[in-house]
Amino acid sequence: MSEPTTEQELGITKSKEHETGEWYAEVVRKAKLASYGPEGMSGFIITRPRGYALWEAIRDDLDEQFKSTGVRNAYFPVFIPESYLQREKDIIEGFDPEVAWVTHGGHDELEERLAVRPTSESIITPYMSQWIRSHRDLPLRVNQWCGVVRWEATETKPFFRTKEFLWQEGHTAHRSREDALEETFRRLDQYESTYEDLLAMPVLKGEKPEHDKFPGAHTTTTIEALMPDGKSVQGSTSHYLGTSFAEAFDITYADEDEEQNLAHTTSWGISWRAIGALIMTHSDDQGLVLPPTVAPEQVVVVPIWQSDTKDEVLEYAEELTAELEEDGVRVKLDDREGRNPGFKFNEWELKGVPLRIEIGPNEVDDDELTLVHRPDGESTVEDRENADETVQDHLDEVYAKLYATAEEILEDGVREADTRDEILGTIGQHGGYVKAPWCGEEACETEVKDQIAAEIVMVPFEEEDDLADGDHDETCAVCDDDAERTAYFAKSY
Amino acid sequence: MSEPTTEQELGITKSKEHETGEWYAEVVRKAKLASYGPEGMSGFIITRPRGYALWEAIRDDLDEQFKSTGVRNAYFPVFIPESYLQREKDIIEGFDPEVAWVTHGGHDELEERLAVRPTSESIITPYMSQWIRSHRDLPLRVNQWCGVVRWEATETKPFFRTKEFLWQEGHTAHRSREDALEETFRRLDQYESTYEDLLAMPVLKGEKPEHDKFPGAHTTTTIEALMPDGKSVQGSTSHYLGTSFAEAFDITYADEDEEQNLAHTTSWGISWRAIGALIMTHSDDQGLVLPPTVAPEQVVVVPIWQSDTKDEVLEYAEELTAELEEDGVRVKLDDREGRNPGFKFNEWELKGVPLRIEIGPNEVDDDELTLVHRPDGESTVEDRENADETVQDHLDEVYAKLYATAEEILEDGVREADTRDEILGTIGQHGGYVKAPWCGEEACETEVKDQIAAEIVMVPFEEEDDLADGDHDETCAVCDDDAERTAYFAKSY
Ligand SMILES: [Zn+2]
Ligand SMILES: [Zn+2]
Repeated sequence: MSEPTTEQELGITKSKEHETGEWYAEVVRKAKLASYGPEGMSGFIITRPRGYALWEAIRDDLDEQFKSTGVRNAYFPVFIPESYLQREKDIIEGFDPEVAWVTHGGHDELEERLAVRPTSESIITPYMSQWIRSHRDLPLRVNQWCGVVRWEATETKPFFRTKEFLWQEGHTAHRSREDALEETFRRLDQYESTYEDLLAMPVLKGEKPEHDKFPGAHTTTTIEALMPDGKSVQGSTSHYLGTSFAEAFDITYADEDEEQNLAHTTSWGISWRAIGALIMTHSDDQGLVLPPTVAPEQVVVVPIWQSDTKDEVLEYAEELTAELEEDGVRVKLDDREGRNPGFKFNEWELKGVPLRIEIGPNEVDDDELTLVHRPDGESTVEDRENADETVQDHLDEVYAKLYATAEEILEDGVREADTRDEILGTIGQHGGYVKAPWCGEEACETEVKDQIAAEIVMVPFEEEDDLADGDHDETCAVCDDDAERTAYFAKSY
Repeated sequence: MSEPTTEQELGITKSKEHETGEWYAEVVRKAKLASYGPEGMSGFIITRPRGYALWEAIRDDLDEQFKSTGVRNAYFPVFIPESYLQREKDIIEGFDPEVAWVTHGGHDELEERLAVRPTSESIITPYMSQWIRSHRDLPLRVNQWCGVVRWEATETKPFFRTKEFLWQEGHTAHRSREDALEETFRRLDQYESTYEDLLAMPVLKGEKPEHDKFPGAHTTTTIEALMPDGKSVQGSTSHYLGTSFAEAFDITYADEDEEQNLAHTTSWGISWRAIGALIMTHSDDQGLVLPPTVAPEQVVVVPIWQSDTKDEVLEYAEELTAELEEDGVRVKLDDREGRNPGFKFNEWELKGVPLRIEIGPNEVDDDELTLVHRPDGESTVEDRENADETVQDHLDEVYAKLYATAEEILEDGVREADTRDEILGTIGQHGGYVKAPWCGEEACETEVKDQIAAEIVMVPFEEEDDLADGDHDETCAVCDDDAERTAYFAKSY
């Protein structure tokens, strides 16, 4: 339970390449992103300020995108009556085995058990049904940022697997299939933008195979991100639900001719798993690496002095810090006494500050700055003048470097296979995605899954899938029946 | 459960003055701020987008104030083990009778019951204890925005009394009493600023009497707001906890000489009750009234046309709307067909839009705008040119009117009394606050409470209380013993 306090404890001791799981846990703990929950609450984490700031960055980015495209936030209760969850069972299997149940309020047993929300369809949809009367009420778009609880008995992995997690769930209703599909893809594109433009993570977009869709959904679209350990993370999903929820919960509207019609609905969400994927993608054996877009501190200024140069160095560093701060840069001056520069370098590297500026007597004499990029240690000397522009350029460069590295991993990580053995061999040897022609049957996925625990994480959208139009001679890599679609096999988180 | 759909249903039917409770419920429902929870969940509400937008405005305003003064957000689990709540009992009574208990995860009974957080001291403080080792870790300031559950069996009143409510809880640790007291007052001042500068509500600041402090607190400071029905609302509280929590949870730090010291802690919070107070303060028999600072729509443009003027009126209204939007005004053009202007006026009045701009053929011909203030219906004709500045001026005027009205109610609402009978008579007749000299004993409050259900909601801070220095001949209005302080008696929410 104790926190690192000595110089030695500060360093990361595990290897990202060889002990990925242990390395990840060490980065999360030592960069002070999260702590494990107390005894009796395994599976829960405490999200510390440095970790929560990442969630705030993701939330703010998406919230702005959502609001500028017609979404409004709401808040539904943390509890859902058991009968409401039951009602949903006609269309979906339900989360019963994973629900935390409230049975007592104060000293009294409740008449009906209340579920701590595992997701909110079953309470949001009935209210949408009340709120929608006429075509004038459509589209209706409601979103909530909240925590949900799923009582899964798996090993805790902060942000990736926790019994409680923070997420956002959007629920919308539309007049037509076209409108609802447009909404589904609009939200998927916004998630993609957050991954690519905020988190420096290139991703794949596609849909889930028929047998792996969200229960009750007509189409489940997905964002998939490749982790450096060769596994895929489902980064977010956006579902076109057709009229199945509207039928179950009676979401109808009167059109211009007073005819009653079923609405078409969607739902879409992203969880703090995105934080896990972010950490996993960019960080290294020195600790956390963050893109400047989300880093709580974008720049750390480290003054390097001897007793005879201390005053001038500190003054120069302070002026620089003040100037950058004024220009809106999130900058920290580390002028702590009793810590040598090497210690400070290590600590800020561990914490993932994207850019370090070193100020020593030379910099002061020559009116310069030494800038060091966190991801690769590249060091550049630049003029002190126009420091704000220089710093912004270097932050952009750091972002570009992170993106380029991740892009290379993704591009190298997509391989092709034409036979069952090739699929197994390629994933076994390299991890990553294996593209293969597929007949569309779950049984062919099962064969691969049973052998190597890889599944079909994604199928390209019809219009981007050469095999979707049937005008070809390709056969399923597993069973040799006619191929209907291209499947991306991968191990996944 | 059904929502208003016809013109008649849109209007408020209850009187604010004579049926305050019913009127409040009607405004909340018809302005679409909140709906009641489903069957089996009495005491819970659904916060609809128009209601949640008010919470977002309050949250954003405070969050910025907090962050600019050293606070960082975190997230602690929604559950707290029963043993953690027990541990706190040494210092505080605890929330046991009001706790919702989780007893099952999936199909299994839990070994230890988990409380749905009624407040988070008991889980946050132990982690603060871990995170604090040295004076360099101080001050430590952690805040979380979250929901809490308290199983009170009282009648539901949206935002005022609900079993689940949204709030913010800040927890800080400091080296000294002075630092912690400064923190306590800094937060109280920030709450005051939110009430006065965002919500147009003048408030009183003071402290709770000894017997009504937060359990374990050294000093509980409070913001009190007077409602038009003469009752006081506790708008937010900020506690200086002394070293009592630090003792119970072992929050110690090593100072420069490696000596171990107890930290001084504070906590402070505001809940969505602020939304309730906002609605109650400004709204009227036509419905919701909101200050422009928080209104989801600040301006509604209503075009008024006949068939021969429709094109020119609409074009003029559209151009105006676009121009205001570009200038950052939250503006809505109500160009619905099939609704007459009177219907639209009523609907936007009900929804609390602060400023209406009417555009008819006359406005088009004369290059003018007709602006109508929501609070008092005052109508002004202004030039079309520089519409953005004109609109901003009128929004400021509306804010000033709301503030002035509330200020008058507060100023008129503070009366003085020197005897028990005067206290009872004045509160009975006028409501509001009654200032009276007080000996400091709870018994004298009890006498008043038993008679008229009023209590001491506030005592002015020592330095602002003439009676605090003992240099006077005043005696307690109730028991005639020497008066120690000035007490503000009031009925409260
Ligand atoms: Zn096959
Ligand atoms: Zn007395």
